[in-house]
Amino acid sequence: MQVKITGTGSYIPTVIKKNKDFLEVEFYNEKKERFPNSNEIIIKKFKAITGIEERRYLVPELDSSDMGLAASEKAIKDAKIDKESLNYIIVAENFGDVKTGSNQSDFLPSIGSRIKHGLKIENPNCVAYDVIFGCPGWIQSMIQAYIYIKSGEAKKCLVVGTETLSRIVDPNDRDSMIYADGAGACVVEASDEPGGVLSYAAQTHTLNEAYYLFFGNSNNPNLDQNIGYIKMYGRKIYEFALVNVPLAMKEALDKSGVDIKDIKKILIHQANEKMDEAIVARFYKLYDMEMPKDIMPMTINKFGNSSVATIPTLLDLILNKNFEGHNLKKGDIVLMASVGAGMNINAIVYQF
Amino acid sequence: MQVKITGTGSYIPTVIKKNKDFLEVEFYNEKKERFPNSNEIIIKKFKAITGIEERRYLVPELDSSDMGLAASEKAIKDAKIDKESLNYIIVAENFGDVKTGSNQSDFLPSIGSRIKHGLKIENPNCVAYDVIFGCPGWIQSMIQAYIYIKSGEAKKCLVVGTETLSRIVDPNDRDSMIYADGAGACVVEASDEPGGVLSYAAQTHTLNEAYYLFFGNSNNPNLDQNIGYIKMYGRKIYEFALVNVPLAMKEALDKSGVDIKDIKKILIHQANEKMDEAIVARFYKLYDMEMPKDIMPMTINKFGNSSVATIPTLLDLILNKNFEGHNLKKGDIVLMASVGAGMNINAIVYQF
Repeated sequence: MQVKITGTGSYIPTVIKKNKDFLEVEFYNEKKERFPNSNEIIIKKFKAITGIEERRYLVPELDSSDMGLAASEKAIKDAKIDKESLNYIIVAENFGDVKTGSNQSDFLPSIGSRIKHGLKIENPNCVAYDVIFGCPGWIQSMIQAYIYIKSGEAKKCLVVGTETLSRIVDPNDRDSMIYADGAGACVVEASDEPGGVLSYAAQTHTLNEAYYLFFGNSNNPNLDQNIGYIKMYGRKIYEFALVNVPLAMKEALDKSGVDIKDIKKILIHQANEKMDEAIVARFYKLYDMEMPKDIMPMTINKFGNSSVATIPTLLDLILNKNFEGHNLKKGDIVLMASVGAGMNINAIVYQF
Repeated sequence: MQVKITGTGSYIPTVIKKNKDFLEVEFYNEKKERFPNSNEIIIKKFKAITGIEERRYLVPELDSSDMGLAASEKAIKDAKIDKESLNYIIVAENFGDVKTGSNQSDFLPSIGSRIKHGLKIENPNCVAYDVIFGCPGWIQSMIQAYIYIKSGEAKKCLVVGTETLSRIVDPNDRDSMIYADGAGACVVEASDEPGGVLSYAAQTHTLNEAYYLFFGNSNNPNLDQNIGYIKMYGRKIYEFALVNVPLAMKEALDKSGVDIKDIKKILIHQANEKMDEAIVARFYKLYDMEMPKDIMPMTINKFGNSSVATIPTLLDLILNKNFEGHNLKKGDIVLMASVGAGMNINAIVYQF
């Protein structure tokens, strides 16, 4: 019995925030000092490293759970299943619903419960819960769904990733330009067809790495220093990811028994284009290969880092929209991988 | 291959908050009006229904993750395992770390990552994540650990529940007297011995029930009405729980094949003593039985409702402290059950 994705959906927020929209922002460094460079230079450098030209923000009147619901409705429709037949709704997210203008995370009830409520599912045996696992949360939720189905404890799961990072960024931190909003979802089912999830790897690095991404105060000394925002040690994350993500990808691939040459696409979490390219190049180097052209479809230039939503959104775009010429057909094998807060890393080898 | 608890630990916060400590509080109702009754009468009535005489609060300088770490250290020691052999650290919690004086939930990184960091575990293949599932989160995390181990995906899991509800209660709401802080943990392992987890049931009710527990503003109109606190429709929850929890308990018991007469103890989540007694009485009535005396050890009178911590703490007290004459020996069968935000319900039948 295999575990296959039978439907996908995504919600791409409608507010386009361009790099030039940050031209007038007062950026401060972590020492709470203004940068000597102009914003033109800061943004140009930012673009060169991350690849981000613009990102999507959710409209103020909607919340993370609304996006998750919209993506879920599409995935269920795409899978052509009866929503009442779902055994699980597993939602990867990290900050709950954060209302516009608020600094509070609302987890009461869970985003999973909110989405199930919005889907108007009556069946109480459809269990909804949220997973907190940083940006790799969506792949981790996929791994959980895989285990539930593989072990016979479930037949159909909805796996959602939704996040509204725009509402928890320090407005005066350059790094805030990385973060974005979005939601993606897929339906995973027990299947008699070949393929599906072939293998996975998952890791949590905490000895030295637990606080590489952390909740910290604004770089702007004039803002309330008791309010927390997403903060990161970018250089440390970069170095950590470059060493460890290729190894986790290799672990998953080797477990699957798939030849590296048979990987059609690599769908990687996107926080930094240069970092992703370096990770994937290193992964191929572990097999003494050059990174193939067009192996890694990227959305970061237009969507930024939308956390748990990045990979399911990308998957949905490729499967349903023939995204930038990338396509996947029956039998194709993809390697999905992510790294983020925790620090967590995971990877799945999947055959369509 | 069975899935057995091999060690337990708990952290009971040291600040004792007695009912009389609420005598001077200005209580308001949900219409933002003062109650006509005196606090003496309010508290007397509260005590008569909930059974709560006092509750425990965490000291201001510690956080939820600190409590979870303390409980985890004890559970690992009790299990006599090498911490590096853990495959998973699964943490049930709902509000992250909430620093004293703050209204923000800090989920960056997850409580699981913080606990793993505190345990100084080096093994990156020990995956740590948090589960958001209301008060039933700890039992749900146990169910996840059970599935991982039963399916061969893991051998040893640490399952933690930790919560600091005292930091997210509306100080002017009578219901705030219910909530408390605490942490409990257990180590679950693959075992060749008989017993362990025999069966489980899990449900999420959202069609009408999703917002029975919700994030709402202070009853005190003089407090900032943009700040969220735990709020509940107590009467609705009571009626919901009375109908649905006994049925879920019955589902788990019937799946296990255990005769109801062989249940030694029922460990139930505790938010309201009268409600718990009514639930368990109804459960026995489903089998045309009277509720046996001393079947349900209670901590609520001294510990209040400590959310995800209630059941693992109770379990640890019974196993390691011979709590109020309750004890469990090899072969004994317990039924654990919980209900809470989501609205989620679950139950496990377990044999020691």
